Amino acid sequence: MAEDNILSGISSPSDLKDLSAEDLDHLAEEIREEIVKTVSKNGGHLASNLGVVELTIALHTVFNCPEDKIVWDVGHQSYAHKLLTGRAKKLHTIRTENGLSGFPKRSESKYDAFDTGHSSTSVSAAFGISCANSINNDTHFTVAVIGDGALSGGLSFEGLNCAGRSKERLIVVLNDNKMSISKNVGSMARYLTKIRIRPSYINAKIRVRSKLKKIPLFGKQLAYFFSRFKHWTKVKFFGYQENMFEQLGFKYYGPFDGHNILQLQTALSAAKRAKGPVIVHVCTTKGLGYEYAEKNPKNYHGISAFDVETGEPISSSTGYSDIFGQYMCSRAESDGNICAITAAMAIGTGLSGFAEKYKNRFFDVGIAEEHAVTFACGLAVGGVLPVFAVYSTFLQRGYDQILHDAAMQELHVVFAIDRAGIVGEDGETHQGIFDVAFMNTIPGVTVYSPSCFGELEGMLELALYENKGVVAVRYPRGGELYMPEGYEYKKEDYSFFGNRSADILLVTYGRIFSYAAQAADELRNEGTEVCILKLNKIKPIADEAIGESLKYKTVYFFEEGIQSGGVGEVFGMKLYTSGYKGEFKLIAIDGFVKQAKVADALHKLGLDKQAIKDRISSDNKSRSEN
Amino acid sequence: MAEDNILSGISSPSDLKDLSAEDLDHLAEEIREEIVKTVSKNGGHLASNLGVVELTIALHTVFNCPEDKIVWDVGHQSYAHKLLTGRAKKLHTIRTENGLSGFPKRSESKYDAFDTGHSSTSVSAAFGISCANSINNDTHFTVAVIGDGALSGGLSFEGLNCAGRSKERLIVVLNDNKMSISKNVGSMARYLTKIRIRPSYINAKIRVRSKLKKIPLFGKQLAYFFSRFKHWTKVKFFGYQENMFEQLGFKYYGPFDGHNILQLQTALSAAKRAKGPVIVHVCTTKGLGYEYAEKNPKNYHGISAFDVETGEPISSSTGYSDIFGQYMCSRAESDGNICAITAAMAIGTGLSGFAEKYKNRFFDVGIAEEHAVTFACGLAVGGVLPVFAVYSTFLQRGYDQILHDAAMQELHVVFAIDRAGIVGEDGETHQGIFDVAFMNTIPGVTVYSPSCFGELEGMLELALYENKGVVAVRYPRGGELYMPEGYEYKKEDYSFFGNRSADILLVTYGRIFSYAAQAADELRNEGTEVCILKLNKIKPIADEAIGESLKYKTVYFFEEGIQSGGVGEVFGMKLYTSGYKGEFKLIAIDGFVKQAKVADALHKLGLDKQAIKDRISSDNKSRSEN
Repeated sequence: MAEDNILSGISSPSDLKDLSAEDLDHLAEEIREEIVKTVSKNGGHLASNLGVVELTIALHTVFNCPEDKIVWDVGHQSYAHKLLTGRAKKLHTIRTENGLSGFPKRSESKYDAFDTGHSSTSVSAAFGISCANSINNDTHFTVAVIGDGALSGGLSFEGLNCAGRSKERLIVVLNDNKMSISKNVGSMARYLTKIRIRPSYINAKIRVRSKLKKIPLFGKQLAYFFSRFKHWTKVKFFGYQENMFEQLGFKYYGPFDGHNILQLQTALSAAKRAKGPVIVHVCTTKGLGYEYAEKNPKNYHGISAFDVETGEPISSSTGYSDIFGQYMCSRAESDGNICAITAAMAIGTGLSGFAEKYKNRFFDVGIAEEHAVTFACGLAVGGVLPVFAVYSTFLQRGYDQILHDAAMQELHVVFAIDRAGIVGEDGETHQGIFDVAFMNTIPGVTVYSPSCFGELEGMLELALYENKGVVAVRYPRGGELYMPEGYEYKKEDYSFFGNRSADILLVTYGRIFSYAAQAADELRNEGTEVCILKLNKIKPIADEAIGESLKYKTVYFFEEGIQSGGVGEVFGMKLYTSGYKGEFKLIAIDGFVKQAKVADALHKLGLDKQAIKDRISSDNKSRSEN
Repeated sequence: MAEDNILSGISSPSDLKDLSAEDLDHLAEEIREEIVKTVSKNGGHLASNLGVVELTIALHTVFNCPEDKIVWDVGHQSYAHKLLTGRAKKLHTIRTENGLSGFPKRSESKYDAFDTGHSSTSVSAAFGISCANSINNDTHFTVAVIGDGALSGGLSFEGLNCAGRSKERLIVVLNDNKMSISKNVGSMARYLTKIRIRPSYINAKIRVRSKLKKIPLFGKQLAYFFSRFKHWTKVKFFGYQENMFEQLGFKYYGPFDGHNILQLQTALSAAKRAKGPVIVHVCTTKGLGYEYAEKNPKNYHGISAFDVETGEPISSSTGYSDIFGQYMCSRAESDGNICAITAAMAIGTGLSGFAEKYKNRFFDVGIAEEHAVTFACGLAVGGVLPVFAVYSTFLQRGYDQILHDAAMQELHVVFAIDRAGIVGEDGETHQGIFDVAFMNTIPGVTVYSPSCFGELEGMLELALYENKGVVAVRYPRGGELYMPEGYEYKKEDYSFFGNRSADILLVTYGRIFSYAAQAADELRNEGTEVCILKLNKIKPIADEAIGESLKYKTVYFFEEGIQSGGVGEVFGMKLYTSGYKGEFKLIAIDGFVKQAKVADALHKLGLDKQAIKDRISSDNKSRSEN
C-alpha cells in the first residue's frame, strides 16, 4: 500500500487491522487533511473531529464493528468514523442535500449504532444496547464515546447512575478535551482537571498486567493475583482515592494520551477484559493538527465554510444573534436586574460581549438546558430578570421545566429562542421546528416572532418590560431578509399589508413574512391582489386579527414550523369557530426535515417566495378553470 | 403553654424559638398525629411527611423564613412545614377543592418559596434564588431540601454541578431515607449507603469547632486554624476520602440523625457559618411514628384515605394499572423479548408482579424519565421490545428524548402512559393533561386511548405486536366506568354509537366516552337524538372518521386534555379542511387544573355526564329559540 494514500485503501474497519503502527499514524494525518479540506468547503464541526482521529482509529482496531457498537455522543465527532467505515468517497457530500449526515445515522450505515445530535444521550443508549445484548446472550461490546462537555448534561448522570450499578459490559470512553463548545464549566469540569494531573496509576497497572500475561502459565495467575489486590495496593501504596466514576460503580482506566494510538489500543483492550462497566478516560486536544482550530477551538466548533490558509470564514454578516447580544448589553448597562443564561452557547447566541462585561449576571450552565430553565425560575423568584438564550432544538430538553417550574408559577422568565425554524445543514436533529408547537401546549405563555432586526429589539423590549409571566421571542439563524420599504415595527400584535379588499389573505409570521411580501408584490404585478396578515405575537393570537380575517374568501397560512399543534392550526380553529365559511389552507411542516441549505429546504417545504407565489397562482388557475 | 397542645400555639416559625428542647420533641409528636389523622382522611403523602418532622422543626428554628428561603424538592414532604407556618387550622382541607395544596404553593403562603411537584428541581431553583440574592446584596440563606430519591434525577446533578463551583451561600439538605418511592436504585443509592456507615468525622469536627468558639478571643483563631488544616487532617489523620459531593465542590457535613432535633440544629447552624455551598446529609426514616408506614414505606408513599387503626385503605378496587401489570406478565411469559421500564413507579404503574417474575427484563431506573426513554431506545436498537410505564405528567420530562431519540429513529418503543387526564387531589403539578398535546407535536407517533379494561389490553396488543415506531397507550388513574351493554373492542381505529342519522355528533375518547354514552342515553329519553364517535386511535386520526363526520350539523368534541395542540383541534382542522360547513364546538381544558376530586374537576371542566348533557340541551334550547 502506498504510504501516501492509506485512507483510500480502507473500505471497512477490518482493513485497519493489517496496518503497522507507523501506517496508522500516517493514516491519522491523512484523515486530518481530509477533514480540514471538507469542513472548509461544507462547514461543519471541525475542532471536535480533529480531536478524536487517533481515538477513532484505536476504537476501530480494538473493537469489531458493526457487531460491537459504538455510540458517539452528540455525534459531531463522527467524521473520522465515517471515513473508516466505507464512506471516505462520500465525505465531500457531508451536510449537503442527499449527502452524508454530519451526525451518525443508522439509515446511512450499519456502522452507525445510534443516531445522535443532541448531547448526553450516549451512556443511556449504549447501556440499553448492552442490556439487550445480555438478554439475548450476545457477548459483543458496547462503547459510548462522550465528551466532558456532554457530561454536564443530567441525562449523562442518569445513565452513569444506572449503568454503574449493573454488571453489563459497557465501556464509556470519556473524551476529555476540557471544552464543551466554549470552555467547559461546572464542578465536573474542575474535577476532571484534578484527576487529569494525577500520576497515571492505572495506566501503569495495565502495562504491568499485559507484561505479566506474556509469561506463560504463571502469567495468568499472577495477573489474577495482581487484580485481586488492586484495591488494597491502590489505597495503601499509592494513597489512591476513589474518583467519582469509581464511586458510581465504574472501573476507571486513565487518563491516557488521546493522541497516542498504541496507548489507546492498550487501554481499550484492557477495558475489554474488565468485568462490568468501565470508564476509559482519554485526554485529547480539540482542533489538533489545524493550527487555528487548536489555538481557538471554540471558534472552530461548528462553523461555516472557511479559507484553509487563513482560517477566516468565507462569508460573514450580522445575524439575529448579534442583534440580540447587542440589545442585552445595552439594556444591562442601565438595568442592573437583567441576567443572561446560556447552556454552553455563549458565542452561538451572541452573548460573548455580555459575558465579558457583566460577569456576575452571566451564567453559562454548561450543556444543561433543564437546569437552565429551573435556575432561571429561581432567579425570577429572587427578584431579578432572567433571559435564557437557547437554540430552539435544545429547548426541547426544558419542556417540563418551562411548563412546571416557569409557567405554572407565572414567573417572569424570558426565552430568547435562537435558530428557530429551519437551520439547514445540521439536519433533522437540529431543526428548530418544534418550539412553537410545544410552547403552544403550555398555558399562559406569550410568544413573539420577529421578521427583522428592528422587530427583534422591539419584541425583546416588550418581553422584558411590558409582558408578565413566561415570554419567548423566537428568531431564525442568520440575518434579516427583505422587508417592505419604510417598514417600521410599532409593537402591534399583528399588522396587515397590501390590498385589504383582496379575496385572498396570506397569514404568516417570522422570516416567512419576507417571502410572502415579495410573493405578494409579484402576484400583484401579475394581476392577483393579495393581502397579508403578519402575526407578531403568535401566542396568544389576538382575537381582532381573527375578526379582521373573516371577510377573505381564501385564507392561506404559511408556517415555518411543525403543523401539528402549530400556530396555523390554532389560527384555523379560531377562524372556523368564529364562523368563517371560506377556505383555509395551511402550509406547514409535517415531519422531520432533512439536511439541505436553508433556502432549498424552505423551497421544498413550500415556504419560500417562489413556492408561495406558485401555490397561489396554481390555486387561482384551478379555481378559474372550475 | 399547655404541653399537650403546643402546635395550636404556633402561628409562625418565630413561635418555635421560645420552645424548650423538650417542647420541640413533644411538638414533633403532635405534628405526627396531625399528619396521620389528616392523611388517613384526605389521602396524600404519608411516609415522606412523617420522615421529616424533626428536620422541619430544626430548619424553622435555625433559619428565619420567609426571608430565608426553603425549597422543598417534590414538595410531598411539606405538611409539617405547613403546620408550622400558620396553616395548622387548615390542614384538614389539604388536597380538597379550595383547600390547602399537598405541595408548596407560593400563592398559598409567603413561607412557600418555590412551587414543586415534579422531582429534582430544588437545587437549581434554590441556586437561582441564592444567585439573585447575591446580585441584590441580600445575605439571606437559601436551603434546598432534597431526598436521595430525587437525587437520581439528572436535573439535580446539573444543579449540583453548577452550584458546586460557585461561592453562593446555598445549603442543600440531603434527606436520605434510602427510598425514592420504592426502594432507591442506582449507583448513587449504593454510594450513599457507603458514606452513611463511615465514622461521622465532620460531625465530630462541628462539635469541636463550636466548643472552641466558646473560648473567648483565642477561640475564633483556633477555629480558623482548625478549619484551614481540615483537609490536611482529614486525609492524613483520618484516612478520609473526599466524597462525591466534596468532589463536586460542596462542603459536606454529615451524616446526622434526622430525628434528633438538637443534632440537626447544630448541623444546620454550622452550615450557616460555612462559606460557599454546603451539603448537610441527614438520615431519616420514612414513615417514622406510624408503624404500618414505617414497616412498609413504599405502600404509604402517596395513598388514598385509610383506616388509622388497621392501616388498610378504606376502598380499593381494580384499576387500569393492575390490568396493565397483568397484561405485561401474561405476555412476558410467552415473549422473552418484552422488557418493562419504570422510573421509580413499580407499584404505581402495576409492575410489581413483573418485577418479581422477570427480574432480568425489568428496569427500575429511579426518578430519571429522560434516561428511561433513551435507555428504552437503546434496548430497541439492541433488538428487544421495551415498554416504559410512566405517569403522564412525568413523561413531560422525556419530551426531547421521545422526539429526538425514539421518534426520529423510528424505534419501536411502547409508552404505557398511566394517570392520563385529571388525577384529582394532587392538583396542577400532577394532572395528566399535556401528554396528548405534546405527543401530537412529534411526527410518526401513534397514540391509543382506551375507555375500558378490555380496550387497554387490546390496544397494548396492537402497540406491541402490530404497530411500528413509537406507540403510546394512555389510560386514566383508577378503574373503568360505565360502558354500553355488550360493548366489545374490535381493534378499530374508531367506532360510532347511537343514531347515525342524528343532527348532532359527539366526538370523544378515553373515559369521557363513558359519560358521553350516558349523556346520549338520557338525551334520547328526552327526545334529542345524538350520535357518538368514539376515537380509539387518537393519533393519527383516521381520515374515514373525518369523512363520516361531515354530514352532522353540529359536531361537539369533548376532550379531557389541554385544548391547544390537542386531538380536538386536530380533528376540527381536518373536519373544516375537508369541507365541513356545520358547527364545530370544542370543549377541552384551557389552563392548569386545580386540585379537586376527579369527578368534581371533570364536572367543572364540562366533561362529565351531566355537563355534557346540559351543554347539548342548552345549545338545543337556544337554537330553537332563535
